[in-house]
Amino acid sequence: MTTVPRLTDAERDAALSSLPGWVLRADGLAICKTFRFGDFAEAFGFMTRIAIQAEKADHHPEWFNVYNRVEITLTTHDAGGLSTRDVALARAIEQAA
Amino acid sequence: MTTVPRLTDAERDAALSSLPGWVLRADGLAICKTFRFGDFAEAFGFMTRIAIQAEKADHHPEWFNVYNRVEITLTTHDAGGLSTRDVALARAIEQAA
Repeated sequence: MTTVPRLTDAERDAALSSLPGWVLRADGLAICKTFRFGDFAEAFGFMTRIAIQAEKADHHPEWFNVYNRVEITLTTHDAGGLSTRDVALARAIEQAA
Repeated sequence: MTTVPRLTDAERDAALSSLPGWVLRADGLAICKTFRFGDFAEAFGFMTRIAIQAEKADHHPEWFNVYNRVEITLTTHDAGGLSTRDVALARAIEQAA
């Protein structure tokens, strides 16, 4: 498996500033955002759009759903923190929302 | 909204004994099970089958997914604990797995 480089702090901060609502997890190794929809069907439709993008990119979210709420965490285990893959997936998620 | 009656302890124990791998949450108000699959696509396919059943029954899971793992919690907020809806959804989930 190819090693994915971890973002520098400057790269991470630049990426976060262009991703409204995404916050750095307390340990600095992941970014998180909570989305709310009108109901479960809307929330799961959103998850399905993301699942297809994630599978294409071979980079997957950690996520929790209850009814109309979806909490997403992105991190790159191979990088031991955040990588460009997380930024790309966050942008795809914003488009799906 | 119709009130859903909460299961008695005896009803709950009887239901759990027929649902292998499902465990009572520490507070006694929910049942939980973790499922593992070959990869993300299999795990999300399983979630999609459940989502359709859940939407039909208008009773939804609380769930967490990371890659091939799906952790499911079932409870009925209207009942303040477990109801027959959770047992029915757990059985549908077993069929989807």
